[in-house]
Amino acid sequence: MNRRDKAFVAVAAELVEAARLFGGRGWALATSGNFSARVGERAVAITRSGCDKQQLLPDDLVLVNLDGGALDPPDARPSAEAAIHGQLYRRRVSVGAVLHVHSPAATVMSRLCEPEGAVVLSGWEMQKGLAGVLTHEQIVRIPIFGNTQDVASLAAVVGDHVTAHPEHPGCLIAGHGIYGWGASVTEARCHIEALEFLCECEWRLRAAAVPDGDRK
Amino acid sequence: MNRRDKAFVAVAAELVEAARLFGGRGWALATSGNFSARVGERAVAITRSGCDKQQLLPDDLVLVNLDGGALDPPDARPSAEAAIHGQLYRRRVSVGAVLHVHSPAATVMSRLCEPEGAVVLSGWEMQKGLAGVLTHEQIVRIPIFGNTQDVASLAAVVGDHVTAHPEHPGCLIAGHGIYGWGASVTEARCHIEALEFLCECEWRLRAAAVPDGDRK
Amino acid sequence: MNRRDKAFVAVAAELVEAARLFGGRGWALATSGNFSARVGERAVAITRSGCDKQQLLPDDLVLVNLDGGALDPPDARPSAEAAIHGQLYRRRVSVGAVLHVHSPAATVMSRLCEPEGAVVLSGWEMQKGLAGVLTHEQIVRIPIFGNTQDVASLAAVVGDHVTAHPEHPGCLIAGHGIYGWGASVTEARCHIEALEFLCECEWRLRAAAVPDGDRK
Amino acid sequence: MNRRDKAFVAVAAELVEAARLFGGRGWALATSGNFSARVGERAVAITRSGCDKQQLLPDDLVLVNLDGGALDPPDARPSAEAAIHGQLYRRRVSVGAVLHVHSPAATVMSRLCEPEGAVVLSGWEMQKGLAGVLTHEQIVRIPIFGNTQDVASLAAVVGDHVTAHPEHPGCLIAGHGIYGWGASVTEARCHIEALEFLCECEWRLRAAAVPDGDRK
Repeated sequence: MNRRDKAFVAVAAELVEAARLFGGRGWALATSGNFSARVGERAVAITRSGCDKQQLLPDDLVLVNLDGGALDPPDARPSAEAAIHGQLYRRRVSVGAVLHVHSPAATVMSRLCEPEGAVVLSGWEMQKGLAGVLTHEQIVRIPIFGNTQDVASLAAVVGDHVTAHPEHPGCLIAGHGIYGWGASVTEARCHIEALEFLCECEWRLRAAAVPDGDRK
Repeated sequence: MNRRDKAFVAVAAELVEAARLFGGRGWALATSGNFSARVGERAVAITRSGCDKQQLLPDDLVLVNLDGGALDPPDARPSAEAAIHGQLYRRRVSVGAVLHVHSPAATVMSRLCEPEGAVVLSGWEMQKGLAGVLTHEQIVRIPIFGNTQDVASLAAVVGDHVTAHPEHPGCLIAGHGIYGWGASVTEARCHIEALEFLCECEWRLRAAAVPDGDRK
Repeated sequence: MNRRDKAFVAVAAELVEAARLFGGRGWALATSGNFSARVGERAVAITRSGCDKQQLLPDDLVLVNLDGGALDPPDARPSAEAAIHGQLYRRRVSVGAVLHVHSPAATVMSRLCEPEGAVVLSGWEMQKGLAGVLTHEQIVRIPIFGNTQDVASLAAVVGDHVTAHPEHPGCLIAGHGIYGWGASVTEARCHIEALEFLCECEWRLRAAAVPDGDRK
Repeated sequence: MNRRDKAFVAVAAELVEAARLFGGRGWALATSGNFSARVGERAVAITRSGCDKQQLLPDDLVLVNLDGGALDPPDARPSAEAAIHGQLYRRRVSVGAVLHVHSPAATVMSRLCEPEGAVVLSGWEMQKGLAGVLTHEQIVRIPIFGNTQDVASLAAVVGDHVTAHPEHPGCLIAGHGIYGWGASVTEARCHIEALEFLCECEWRLRAAAVPDGDRK
C-alpha cells in the first residue's frame, strides 16, 4: 500500500474537498484541524502537520498506520493528533473517516458547558443529522473531554468513550473543537456540520440572554 | 411527464441554483433542507432525501405527485418532508415553489418565540420582501408551528394554515427552520431571504440585551 | 444619452461589481438595496426595481433623470427609491454614486439608536474610511432618519440634511439600512463598508453586555 | 533592487494571496489594512495607500526602505503605516512579513480589554497557532496599545515592545485591529488567523453573558 494506490487517491480527493469546504468557512484557521479516512484495514490517509486546510492539496495527505506512524512517505510528519484518529479506527471497524475542526461555535460551547461535561441538545430537528438520532425529542448528550497536550492519553479517553458508546458520532474537546466520525467522509462531514450548527443555535440562545428556566 | 420533460429540466435548474446559493450560506448543512417546484398541475420536482444541498446536482431532483409519491425514477426516495410540500401545492394552486432551510437565525427565533406562537415583526423595511406587505408599519406575524416527526400531521397543520391565511408567504417550525413558498422559485427564494434576514435582525436586537419595553 | 453610451456602460460595470460584492455578503437579500451612479449632469444609471443584487446583470441598470423618471428604456421601472438618489445628485454636484444596502449590523443599529437620532462613533480607526474624518478621536454622528413609505418626503429629509451637512458620507434610515454616497462608485463602496463595519463593532460591544458607563 | 526583482515578484504574489483571502473574509473593508514582506535586508514590499485589499493586484505593491520611504516607483505612496512595519523589520531581523487587518472580533476585543492593556488567553488549543506557545495551559497576553494618529510614536511603541518581548507574534491597537508578523507571509497569516479566532471565541464567551467568576 502506498500513496499511488487507487484507494488512497480516492479518499485523498474526498478529504481535500472536505478540508477546503470547512477551511473556507473558517473552521480550520491557522493550520488547525486534521482530516483522515481509512484506506483498508490497517492504514489511514491523514493530513500532514502544519498545512493550510483552505488550500489543501492531495500531496498534503500522507499514509500512516493505526498508531499514526508514517508509511508513505516514510519521513512524513503526520498530524500531531494522528493517535486520536488511530484509536477511533482501531476501536470501531465501522469508522471510515475522522474529521477534526476548530469551528467557533463548538469551540466556545465546549468551554461554556465544560462543567457539565456535555452539550445537551433537545428540540432541534438538526439532531437527526447525527447517526442514530431519529427525533428532535431525543435528548442528545455530546460529550466534552478535558483538553491535554498528552495526545496518547486524550486518544485513550476518546477511544474508551467510543467503545462504551459505539453509537456516538462525535465529541468535543474543551477549548479545542469537534471530533466527528462516520462510515465515510460524507457521513463524517454531515456529523461535523450538524454539531457545529447545533452549537451555533445553542450559543445564540445563550447570547439572547434567555435564562435557562425560561427556555422551552 | 418524466424527468426529461422540458418543464422539469427548467425548474430543476432553478432549484439547483437556489440550493447551492442557500447551501453556500450555511442554511442547509448536514443534508438538511429540501427544495421543490411545481411541474404542471399534478407533479412536483423535489430534492431526494439525504443529498448535500451545497453541491446539489440536477440528478438529485426527482419527480413526485402531490402526495409525495415517486413518479420518476419510480424507485426514488424523495425528501421525507415531501408531504408538507404537497399540501401547499394542493391547497394553493398559485404556489409554484416551496423551499425549506435550516438557517441559524430563523431556527433560533423559532425556539425563542415558540411560546407566543409567532415571530412578530414591525418597523423593518425588509418586511416588504414578503408578498402582500406594503409598509414597514404593518405588524407581520410569522407563525411558528410545533415540530413533530409525524410528517402527515405537520403537513395538515401547515396546509390548514395556508387555507385560512392564503396571503402568508411562509412559516417557521419550532427548532426546525423556515418553510417559504411563492408563485415561482424566485419569489420563494425572496421570501426565505427576507424571513432569515428579519429573524437575524430580531435576534441581534435580543442579543444586544435591549429589554422589550425599551424597544422602539 | 442612452444605455449604449460609453459613460453608461462604464458605470454600469462598476455598479454590477459593487452589487455582486455586497449581494454576496448578504447585504442586499430578497431584492433589497439599490445602486446608482451619475452619468453626466442630468442622468443617472440605477438598478431597476426587484432584481437580485447578488446576480445583477448590466441589463438590470436603467437610465433615469434626476427625478427618477425613466429615460432608457422608456418603460423601465427604476428602483422605487430613485427619488432619494436623485435628491443627492441634485443637492451635491460632487456626488457621483449612491449605494443603499440592507446590511444586518447597520439595520439593527438604526433601530437600537433611533431614539438618539444617530449612531455616535468614536475611538475606531475605521472612522477614517469616511471622507473628511482624519482621526479616530473625532466624534462622528451618523444620522438616523425615521422610515416612511412616502419616498418623496424621505428624499426631501435626506436632501435637506446633505445640504446642511455637505461633508456627511452617508446616513441610516431606521429599520431600513444604509445610504452611502461619494464622488465615485469606489468611494461610495468604501463608505458603505466603513459604516457597516463600524455598526458591527458597536453592536458587538452592546452584545458583550458592556454597560455604557464602563466603556472606554 | 526594483519591482522587477525576482524576490519582489515572489513576495508580492504571496501578499496578493493573503490580502485577497483576508479581504474576502471582511477583515480589510473600506481599504483598511496593510500588508508587507521583507525583500532582502534593507527593503520591503508593502501595499500602497488606499487600495481595495479584496481585489489587490501585484501593481498595488510598492518597494520601500525600512523607514517607509518609496524606492520603486519613486513617487509611490506606500501605506500610511509603513513606519510601523519598518520598525518590526529593523528591530527583528527574523521578521519576514507583517500583516495588519481590521477584523471585527479583534477590533472589538481591543476596546473591551483596553483597560487591562491586553487580551489574556488561556485554555484554547488555538493558542498553539502562535509561535512559541506549546500548550493551551499557557497564559498568553496579547498586548493592546493605545491608538494614535502619530504613526512614528505608534511605531516606536510597537518596536520597543518587540525588542522587549521578541517572542511575541502580534499585538492589538485599540479600536484599530491586529498587527501580526512572522518569519514568512505564511507564518504571519497563521498568527493573524489564530489571533482573530481567539478574539472571536473570547467575544462569544462574553456575549453569552457568562460572568467572569463563573468561567472555567
